[in-house]
Amino acid sequence: MLKIADKTFRSRLFTGTGKFSNATLMQEALKASGSELVTVALKRIDMQAKDDDILPYLDWEGLHLLPNTSGVRTAEEAVFAAELAREALETNWVKLEIHPDPRYLMPDPVETLKATAELAKRGFVVLPYVHADPVLCKRLEEAGAAAVMPLGAPIGSNLGLETKVFLEIIIEQSQVPVVVDAGIGTPSDAAWAMELGADAVLVNTAIAAADDPVLMAKAFRLAVEAGRMAYEAKPAAAGLKASPTSPLTQFLDEL
Amino acid sequence: MLKIADKTFRSRLFTGTGKFSNATLMQEALKASGSELVTVALKRIDMQAKDDDILPYLDWEGLHLLPNTSGVRTAEEAVFAAELAREALETNWVKLEIHPDPRYLMPDPVETLKATAELAKRGFVVLPYVHADPVLCKRLEEAGAAAVMPLGAPIGSNLGLETKVFLEIIIEQSQVPVVVDAGIGTPSDAAWAMELGADAVLVNTAIAAADDPVLMAKAFRLAVEAGRMAYEAKPAAAGLKASPTSPLTQFLDEL
Amino acid sequence: MLKIADKTFRSRLFTGTGKFSNATLMQEALKASGSELVTVALKRIDMQAKDDDILPYLDWEGLHLLPNTSGVRTAEEAVFAAELAREALETNWVKLEIHPDPRYLMPDPVETLKATAELAKRGFVVLPYVHADPVLCKRLEEAGAAAVMPLGAPIGSNLGLETKVFLEIIIEQSQVPVVVDAGIGTPSDAAWAMELGADAVLVNTAIAAADDPVLMAKAFRLAVEAGRMAYEAKPAAAGLKASPTSPLTQFLDEL
Amino acid sequence: MLKIADKTFRSRLFTGTGKFSNATLMQEALKASGSELVTVALKRIDMQAKDDDILPYLDWEGLHLLPNTSGVRTAEEAVFAAELAREALETNWVKLEIHPDPRYLMPDPVETLKATAELAKRGFVVLPYVHADPVLCKRLEEAGAAAVMPLGAPIGSNLGLETKVFLEIIIEQSQVPVVVDAGIGTPSDAAWAMELGADAVLVNTAIAAADDPVLMAKAFRLAVEAGRMAYEAKPAAAGLKASPTSPLTQFLDEL
Repeated sequence: MLKIADKTFRSRLFTGTGKFSNATLMQEALKASGSELVTVALKRIDMQAKDDDILPYLDWEGLHLLPNTSGVRTAEEAVFAAELAREALETNWVKLEIHPDPRYLMPDPVETLKATAELAKRGFVVLPYVHADPVLCKRLEEAGAAAVMPLGAPIGSNLGLETKVFLEIIIEQSQVPVVVDAGIGTPSDAAWAMELGADAVLVNTAIAAADDPVLMAKAFRLAVEAGRMAYEAKPAAAGLKASPTSPLTQFLDEL
Repeated sequence: MLKIADKTFRSRLFTGTGKFSNATLMQEALKASGSELVTVALKRIDMQAKDDDILPYLDWEGLHLLPNTSGVRTAEEAVFAAELAREALETNWVKLEIHPDPRYLMPDPVETLKATAELAKRGFVVLPYVHADPVLCKRLEEAGAAAVMPLGAPIGSNLGLETKVFLEIIIEQSQVPVVVDAGIGTPSDAAWAMELGADAVLVNTAIAAADDPVLMAKAFRLAVEAGRMAYEAKPAAAGLKASPTSPLTQFLDEL
Repeated sequence: MLKIADKTFRSRLFTGTGKFSNATLMQEALKASGSELVTVALKRIDMQAKDDDILPYLDWEGLHLLPNTSGVRTAEEAVFAAELAREALETNWVKLEIHPDPRYLMPDPVETLKATAELAKRGFVVLPYVHADPVLCKRLEEAGAAAVMPLGAPIGSNLGLETKVFLEIIIEQSQVPVVVDAGIGTPSDAAWAMELGADAVLVNTAIAAADDPVLMAKAFRLAVEAGRMAYEAKPAAAGLKASPTSPLTQFLDEL
Repeated sequence: MLKIADKTFRSRLFTGTGKFSNATLMQEALKASGSELVTVALKRIDMQAKDDDILPYLDWEGLHLLPNTSGVRTAEEAVFAAELAREALETNWVKLEIHPDPRYLMPDPVETLKATAELAKRGFVVLPYVHADPVLCKRLEEAGAAAVMPLGAPIGSNLGLETKVFLEIIIEQSQVPVVVDAGIGTPSDAAWAMELGADAVLVNTAIAAADDPVLMAKAFRLAVEAGRMAYEAKPAAAGLKASPTSPLTQFLDEL
């Protein structure tokens, strides 16, 4: 079982609530995914804009909400958003996303580190979303992050694990759970991340933007389980040299 | 459900019997895999060498044996081996493997085509193992192959899908089922092959050579299901441009 | 120096004449490439259709023409085309291309082997274009091919070396020169093929379809030279473990 | 011509002085590379340890030295090292390398940004070595970096461009020159980086650790030129669909 801060999770598939065509479909997909941790953008839980409120659709036994700070540009804004979320959702968990870049939504390493330290001091369980930067991940850990969330590829790109070499270093060095976030486009990407030794993956766009989000959610659920099992079963090494598996020739020669 | 010739399969994971450390472990792993089609090298079922006989371990409801001709070097040897297998195992199914190359066990396109035509004429259900060669696959289909089995990478290499571009062409053009065979090293590779639209995959070394073959077999089972589901759920396109998922800034500005 | 049959080449960059916007530009690009062997489709040298005749633009010291059989679908058609070319161009060299598939122009392994044997018997210097199939390449060599031309990716795709693993096996096993043909999209692809140990590369689309074909031809010329030099200079092994190059800390500590 | 701060460069290949087996070989290789900017670790120019002094071997027309701070762990140490270098080498150029991690020598984003701002304020021409982090690169530019040096892969790994997707974003967004540093293992990697639009590359291990460093230096020189030319000549797009280059069949049918 995966343990982050005070919570344990049977499912290593974390999900998000963005980009679904409607809230009912979202609910059905999230249930099919088996996910126990779901990120919610603060704006989506805005009390004044009731129409867009998705909270009623995110309420079942075993589901935890993880408010994210998506949209903020600085550590200061992030801390402010996290405090709002803590009050609105009654959780001290927060996914920290600081991306000043409006185009590729790449995270800001410096502001993220600053906000992580401040939020940890304020009693938050902080899960920062960052580039797959091994040194930054160590520093976030030292600053009090409960887990680190390095990206596989730019958010929403579905490009897969473009950062494989760096994820391997991060996984090797990290003392806190490593959750691969962003870029995972298909279940095989998710399985691959788990095979590398990631503790969990976060998938949103790839589920929400599929033709059939519910079926895709189920596919991701199985793939993440498969990847974790494979990691535990320890694959043999890959390499070019092959040796004969079943030489029949000798047998034929003997007839 | 997958249909090849006269048989239907619920499981799209085909397996093999080579390289397991013992027959009991093999049996347990194959059961965990959920596989309904298992390849057996002819030599392994040699009646004279009773010690090595694995048939008693391959006998349960719903399991079909697929004798392979591994070790032969020519079409003539292959036909001879297939006839022996038909008699010994009372099945007209045969996995055709002709590899004169003792080092990398790469298949011979010309002898394989010749043997496929001859075996089809003799009433066999022929599943030829070949390089991921789109033209050859079409010709095998025309010669009567019941399915084609293009490789992902050299046998036993665990390198994954080194032939992706060509598998895509083969899948697009084939009128018979496409089973990706050889090279699949981890469950994520298997899921990937299924996501590309393969009808099934064949996995042997990656299960047998894992530290825990039974757990690995289960991982492959889930991964193949996941990959197939993802194919049916139709993933969104991958690409670099991202659009904001949840702009909080506007929300913050409005406060 | 590269030697194929009776000819030696200083340049390891072979080129083609297709897809240029006009003959003058083609001539200028081919000269800039430094290429000494240029393929010409038989149709382009048709004497009856004078307008399309490019031969006058392919006439300078040190340039050899390599007629190709592009467009034929069978060994028989290929032999017929080769004989026509021998007469028209007064060369017994022929690049053998047999692709019944009109969509991806993938080569036919069986017809190519048959035609190679027949043409070699008729005194041709045969350079067959094939899939990167190690067994087929050995058989072509045995059938009398003067060199083998495995593809990197489908013709005209510019996808690069999608067949790397198989090219490495082919290069390791071949007794005749290996010329990587088709799919090379940029000079870095060409350099990479040479670094793997290819004896030469053939580039056409990537030069002809560039915005500035003459400059691109020059770029390929340098890249092929660079790749060959790198192969001869023997690169150090690649791998993740790094060791400090220049530890300053100790120095600082000593101050 | 490439312009960084007050200097212009005809060569877009920057080199380093580490890992050569002796100073004479280093000198010969650097001359063969055509490089006009060479990094030197501060320790190597320590006046008290005369034996290791390589400065006499780095003295020819058109060669500029770029002292690096390799080995420092903090911004403070980096500034101190840069000041030492400025005095010793009479140059205000400095390559900023801050890597607290002794194993993979991955750079520290936060300390690097801090040191860049401080050094720029002190009048240095700062070239910071960083992870391929698009947001960090923009911040370094704003802090006064004269160029940014994102890595292709961990230093000394020779793994090539593992950060391709992120380098493309950095190149698209940067207002200062982008120099790809670290990880480049072969000339084809260097050509590839230039084709992506990098302004220059820095190569050290791949030259110094080759069997024949002088020949490898020459190979890199050509490859960098080739890659730049290809970038300027604008390659055609890559993709799977092929169209016939030279349909002979019609011609044959007409006979």
